[in-house]
Amino acid sequence: MQAERAMTSAFRQEIERIEQNGITKVAFSRFDDPNVIPLWFGEGDTVTRDFIREAAKAALDDGHTFYVHTRGLPELRSAVARYLDGLYGLDIHPDRITVPGAAMLGVTMAAQTALGRGDHALVVNPAWPNIEAVFRVTGAEIGHVRQHLGPRGWQLDLEELFAAARPNTRAVYVNSPCNPTGWVMAREEQRRLLAFCRERNILLISDEVYHRTVFDTNCAPSFLEVAGENDPLVVVNGFSKAWAMTGWRLGWMVTPRSSRVPWSALSECFNTGATVFAQYGGIAALERGECVVRQLREQYRAGRAIVDAALAGHELIQHHSPDGAFYAFPRIRGLEDSLAFAQDLLREEDVGLAPGYTFGPGFDSHVRLCFARSHEKLIEGLKRLVRFVERRFAHTSPGARTPPAARRARA
Amino acid sequence: MQAERAMTSAFRQEIERIEQNGITKVAFSRFDDPNVIPLWFGEGDTVTRDFIREAAKAALDDGHTFYVHTRGLPELRSAVARYLDGLYGLDIHPDRITVPGAAMLGVTMAAQTALGRGDHALVVNPAWPNIEAVFRVTGAEIGHVRQHLGPRGWQLDLEELFAAARPNTRAVYVNSPCNPTGWVMAREEQRRLLAFCRERNILLISDEVYHRTVFDTNCAPSFLEVAGENDPLVVVNGFSKAWAMTGWRLGWMVTPRSSRVPWSALSECFNTGATVFAQYGGIAALERGECVVRQLREQYRAGRAIVDAALAGHELIQHHSPDGAFYAFPRIRGLEDSLAFAQDLLREEDVGLAPGYTFGPGFDSHVRLCFARSHEKLIEGLKRLVRFVERRFAHTSPGARTPPAARRARA
Repeated sequence: MQAERAMTSAFRQEIERIEQNGITKVAFSRFDDPNVIPLWFGEGDTVTRDFIREAAKAALDDGHTFYVHTRGLPELRSAVARYLDGLYGLDIHPDRITVPGAAMLGVTMAAQTALGRGDHALVVNPAWPNIEAVFRVTGAEIGHVRQHLGPRGWQLDLEELFAAARPNTRAVYVNSPCNPTGWVMAREEQRRLLAFCRERNILLISDEVYHRTVFDTNCAPSFLEVAGENDPLVVVNGFSKAWAMTGWRLGWMVTPRSSRVPWSALSECFNTGATVFAQYGGIAALERGECVVRQLREQYRAGRAIVDAALAGHELIQHHSPDGAFYAFPRIRGLEDSLAFAQDLLREEDVGLAPGYTFGPGFDSHVRLCFARSHEKLIEGLKRLVRFVERRFAHTSPGARTPPAARRARA
Repeated sequence: MQAERAMTSAFRQEIERIEQNGITKVAFSRFDDPNVIPLWFGEGDTVTRDFIREAAKAALDDGHTFYVHTRGLPELRSAVARYLDGLYGLDIHPDRITVPGAAMLGVTMAAQTALGRGDHALVVNPAWPNIEAVFRVTGAEIGHVRQHLGPRGWQLDLEELFAAARPNTRAVYVNSPCNPTGWVMAREEQRRLLAFCRERNILLISDEVYHRTVFDTNCAPSFLEVAGENDPLVVVNGFSKAWAMTGWRLGWMVTPRSSRVPWSALSECFNTGATVFAQYGGIAALERGECVVRQLREQYRAGRAIVDAALAGHELIQHHSPDGAFYAFPRIRGLEDSLAFAQDLLREEDVGLAPGYTFGPGFDSHVRLCFARSHEKLIEGLKRLVRFVERRFAHTSPGARTPPAARRARA
């Protein structure tokens, strides 16, 4: 069985069919436009803290510009292990740690170790759109299992997931805390999903990049807390979100202790390790950055309160205050085309949102907005969003003319 | 057809079978040992030049720590296009340029756009061992076409390559100037190979990272000079070799203008772009680094002369002075196990070489040594290598007791 391919192309059709994600599709034309209030991407507007940047600069001064171990500097891998041990009360062997150049690359590497053409993978949706692209690149078929928004917020029905598995299902992807819903998987759910994967030798890929962006506890439950060191589990994490280091392209993976996968050789195939002097910034973040994690979390918590005040209770908007991550993923009553909505909102109100359709099938009445940004712009952006929603959909709900939420957003 | 997989593993057997390359296998135990003269890796001992490091530090100071375009900063992509235009007299549209985090990641991305399980790829050998691993990850079958060492140096017989192609051959990988042989593909050969690939819609992946490490001209012939902008060609290049920036993890790719491959979406799947502040170093290198390229080349040229003096004409050693790259790839008469040889040399003489077997089938009587390092250590390393070869293999050639080359190496 060869790759399907157009007669006129040297490239795989699977690759040619990968779509630009909906966020970029909306943002592309006005990426750097200062008139836009950009709530579309998953980052704040806080520059990485000085002491982290200084660590990278010192590494440059010290001449750290050569190849290093492709799985990462031993000091960094040990620092990751110590960080996880301290956070979760574990005893992780540093040999289980790999530092790819981006958590995203960690997801790609994990997916590619398990999947090829003819295989099947399950992705818990809604999910960041590039995740689906990562799985498509492997050639595997993808099945979606979706979270549902009920009275108690977003929930995943594990029985649905188990029922969706096929004999050729080789990987399950789950992201908790979830981008975009903020859903945080409970420890007991983690146990059940892991047991299912263990029994069937399915690789569980747990994307935990928002592990510190939770509002009721110090960190979200990690699969590492319920797994044995040889379970079929790859946990992917990184520095972007918890330490405001998006541009650094630095992640980590925790892989099974006994796997025969040559992680070092595999790292050489992908990017031969992360940028060396950036890795020194990673060490500084882990060793001295707990204050950063907490400060950022407080900022996000306040951002969430602003979003809640603006959206909760609005008759045209179904909003659940998220337990984790830094997004709201409201449903707009009457909305059927989230891409057109986001494009029109951008044109008419200069506010950038991510359209819901791009997070998986069934979310075209949702939009995602990131509340990691500074509050003044967030408040103004929400005000314009609510105004736009009312202008467009007010006829669908007669009582929504002067919603109290719109006033609260200005507070 | 599902991936082959051991009953007890969640991972693909194709992945589990990827071997750690022979270079790492030799070097692993004494990676950072200062007593070793390390001629094993493909880098010199020159720290990246100050002005390039300062550019990255200034970017950190200026707060460039956020996400940017995943295909790279527009300024960097334009700088790459201008650089190539100036070097080769071309007019490349910046839209054809992508900046992955490492040239290696560029090879991976290119391979994955063309190959999946059931496909076949041809790799011109000897080749850097991780290249084969990259192709194995795709699930494709790999065929090797080897260069031959004749009286005029290393040569590739294109008829052999054409004969090795199968109906399901979807990609050809060629690296010129070649690591490890120094072979430089002639323009006419490039024309013929490209015509062959064009006719069959085979993706030609040209790895040109040593394009500036040539000793008779300013740059090696590039496939870009003979190709149309829509030919099935991906040229991969990077900053590591020509500007001494190995630890920066920064490459570039030139892709067909009209391809339907969404390079931007694909970049997001892999590492979501290169480290942002490192990209500013790349701009400085391209715009102000021509002096660096020339200085490094003169250093490598002198290194090559030292190698030639030590090895050429030695009765136990078949050495061809390389036209490009910064490696010698001599054949040792009588050698049958290059891994054992490299391990013994390391133990007995504290010299680190790369064993030939790891560069592809048929090269187990060769070793690779890098002459990019400072000359004092290179001379000492060569002296010990020759001494070791004579100790081990002198009985195979009675006239080799007091070779003049061994004395010249001390000069």
